[in-house]
Amino acid sequence: MQKERPVILITNDDGITSPGIRALVEAVKDLAQVIVVAPDSPQSGMGHAITIGDPLRLNKVDVFEGIDSWQCSGTPADCVKLARDKILHRKPDLCLSGINHGANHSINVIYSGTMSAAMEAAIEGVPSIGFSLLDYKFDADFTVAKQVAHDLAKRMLANPMPEHILLNVNIPITTVANFKGMKICRQAYAKWAEEFEHRVDPRGKDYYWMTGKFMNMDKETGTDVEALNEGYASVVPIKIDFTDYTMKTWLEDNWNL
Amino acid sequence: MQKERPVILITNDDGITSPGIRALVEAVKDLAQVIVVAPDSPQSGMGHAITIGDPLRLNKVDVFEGIDSWQCSGTPADCVKLARDKILHRKPDLCLSGINHGANHSINVIYSGTMSAAMEAAIEGVPSIGFSLLDYKFDADFTVAKQVAHDLAKRMLANPMPEHILLNVNIPITTVANFKGMKICRQAYAKWAEEFEHRVDPRGKDYYWMTGKFMNMDKETGTDVEALNEGYASVVPIKIDFTDYTMKTWLEDNWNL
Repeated sequence: MQKERPVILITNDDGITSPGIRALVEAVKDLAQVIVVAPDSPQSGMGHAITIGDPLRLNKVDVFEGIDSWQCSGTPADCVKLARDKILHRKPDLCLSGINHGANHSINVIYSGTMSAAMEAAIEGVPSIGFSLLDYKFDADFTVAKQVAHDLAKRMLANPMPEHILLNVNIPITTVANFKGMKICRQAYAKWAEEFEHRVDPRGKDYYWMTGKFMNMDKETGTDVEALNEGYASVVPIKIDFTDYTMKTWLEDNWNL
Repeated sequence: MQKERPVILITNDDGITSPGIRALVEAVKDLAQVIVVAPDSPQSGMGHAITIGDPLRLNKVDVFEGIDSWQCSGTPADCVKLARDKILHRKPDLCLSGINHGANHSINVIYSGTMSAAMEAAIEGVPSIGFSLLDYKFDADFTVAKQVAHDLAKRMLANPMPEHILLNVNIPITTVANFKGMKICRQAYAKWAEEFEHRVDPRGKDYYWMTGKFMNMDKETGTDVEALNEGYASVVPIKIDFTDYTMKTWLEDNWNL
C-alpha cells in the first residue's frame, strides 16, 4: 500500500504573482502535493498582522501549472489560517513561506510578513520555514535559493523538528559555484535607524516617508548576518515562546511583587 | 541643581481617543514629562506592521490637558519610530503602550499592536511595558490597571531592566479590594482556533469573517493565563532575540549542514 503524499502549503508576502513564490513552488513540487494560498497583493512589512475588522476574500486562481492555488485579500498570517480552515480542512505536513525578495535576517523576523506566515504555522504545530533571498530585484536569480529550499524541505519532511519551532532561512546573492553552503546561526542583534523624510503635499500638508539604514549592532560571532557576509545561507531556529527566562528569575528574586 | 524630569512616551493600538490611553496618561503623569504619539484610528491585530509603502501623517492634537500629543496615520510601531525621530529627537526614558481594551497574554504578544509598540521601543533600547486589561468594553473600569501601571512605571524609572527586554502586563477584571497583586510569569502556550464564517455579499461573491476561540494548550504551571485566572496581574518579561538556542545546538549536532 502506497503512503499518502505529504502536503506542503506555500505562501509569501510579496503576493501570488511574485517570481519568488514561483521559484519556491518549482523547488519543492517533486517532494509533495503542493498547494498555494498567497496574498493577492504585496504585504511586505506587515509583521504578524491579522485581519479582524474586514471581511476576507479567497479566490481560486490558475497561476502555477498543475498546482491548486488561491489568492487571498488578507495578510500572510490570514492565508495560513484560511488555508487550514477552508481549503485543507487539516494541518499541512509542512508550510513554506517565500522566497522573499529581500533579506529577513536578524531583527527583520519581527517585521517580516514572510516570517509571520511561517510563525503562524508554527503556532498551529505545523513544521515551517521562511525563505528570503538577499536580492530585492524583481528579476533576482533564485537558483541557489531553490537548491536550499529543496534540501531543507526534504529534511523537514523526512525528520520534522519538535513542534512550535520554525526556521528563518536567508540566502546570499551568489552563484551555485561560489555558494559556501548552509550554516546554523543565532539571530543577530540589529536594528533599523529610521530617518523619516519630510515632504509637503500639493495641499500644503506635511507627510513623511519612512526610510532607514540597517545597523548590525552585534559584534559577537555566530550570527546570521555574519554567516551571510561570509557567503553562507543562514538557518536560524526560532521559537514562539518569547519569555526571557533569565530575566524572569531575576525579577522574581528582586522585585518582590 | 535639579535633575531633569524623565520623559515617558505613551502610545497604544486602540487609537488616541480610546479610554484606555487616557487612563494610562492619568496613571503616570505625576512620574515624568509625558508625551503621547498614538494612532489616529484603531490598529488592533496589526502585529508588528510598519508602513513602508505609504506616506505617514503626524498631527499635533489637543486631547489630554497639559500633555503634548500627536496622532499618527500609521501603526503602533510607526508611532514609536516617528516619536523618537521627529518629535523627541532622542530616546524617551520609558515607553508605555496601552492600556489595551482586551487581553494580550500568551500567544497574543505576537498579534498585538499594543505589544508591537513596546517591542519597537525595546529594539531601540528603550525600557518599555505593554498594558492590557481583560475587558474589551469601551467603558471598562481601569482603576486597578492604573494602579498597576503607576507601580511598574515607577519601578522601571527608578531601576531600569537590562536593554532589549520589555514587559507584557495583563490585568484581570477585578476591583481594588479583590485584586491579588502582580505575579511574574512565563508566556502560556496557547492559540486561536479559527473558524472563518462564510457569507455571500449582495453581488453573490463569497467572503469570510475571521472568528476564533482562544485555546490555552498549556497545562503546566507558572503561566500568565494561570495567574490571571487566579486574580493576579501577569507580568511576563519578553525578549527580542527569538533564537531557540536548544534547537540550534540540536541542529548543529544532527543536521551536518
